[in-house]
Amino acid sequence: MDKVNLTQKFASFSEHFQQHIVGELNGQEVKIAKVKGEFIWHHHEDADEMFLVVKGNLTIQLRDRDVHIGEGEFFIVPRGIEHRPVAAEEAHIMLFEPANTLNTGNVRNERTYEATRA
Amino acid sequence: MDKVNLTQKFASFSEHFQQHIVGELNGQEVKIAKVKGEFIWHHHEDADEMFLVVKGNLTIQLRDRDVHIGEGEFFIVPRGIEHRPVAAEEAHIMLFEPANTLNTGNVRNERTYEATRA
Repeated sequence: MDKVNLTQKFASFSEHFQQHIVGELNGQEVKIAKVKGEFIWHHHEDADEMFLVVKGNLTIQLRDRDVHIGEGEFFIVPRGIEHRPVAAEEAHIMLFEPANTLNTGNVRNERTYEATRA
Repeated sequence: MDKVNLTQKFASFSEHFQQHIVGELNGQEVKIAKVKGEFIWHHHEDADEMFLVVKGNLTIQLRDRDVHIGEGEFFIVPRGIEHRPVAAEEAHIMLFEPANTLNTGNVRNERTYEATRA
């Protein structure tokens, strides 16, 4: 494989809350997304999910608190925990989670997006 | 768990080529390290290894080529592939790999360092 430049990968799409696969290793996937606005409440039954902010600010709402993540910070949502990503302004994030984890977790609706390779 | 601030974590140690665990998910570990100079040639029999450069520049030497990774770039070394990380100046890197992956892979010598929690 070749190295991956995150800035170039982020420049290759513009939609919000669509995940793009940029790396695969050990049954896990590295994904990136641009987010703005409110996503939906969901959880992943069998997958811990890591959110790393590359640019901007992201809030991970949990049922009992909000976690604010800035550039160079990450947060891991444990499996089974309901969460909702929210960003007032566009943020660029990197995700790390098992392959084939659905963006909407236990929910399947119009926000569901099958991740594609960026 | 709480969010993790990478800048704060990097400020908590100064040794080179020592890996510090900053996150755990799905049987994988997120580690950080400061690197400067040449590491040793090694491979990981059963682990793909991702190197993301947070600050500075890193070269991953492979037997047939060198891969130069700058800030905001990453490279995944597939399992079984011999590699040697090299950095002329101090670089800060983040690693993703299965839990309990040894930094020196198939080699165990004075450069071997059991990763600790940062």
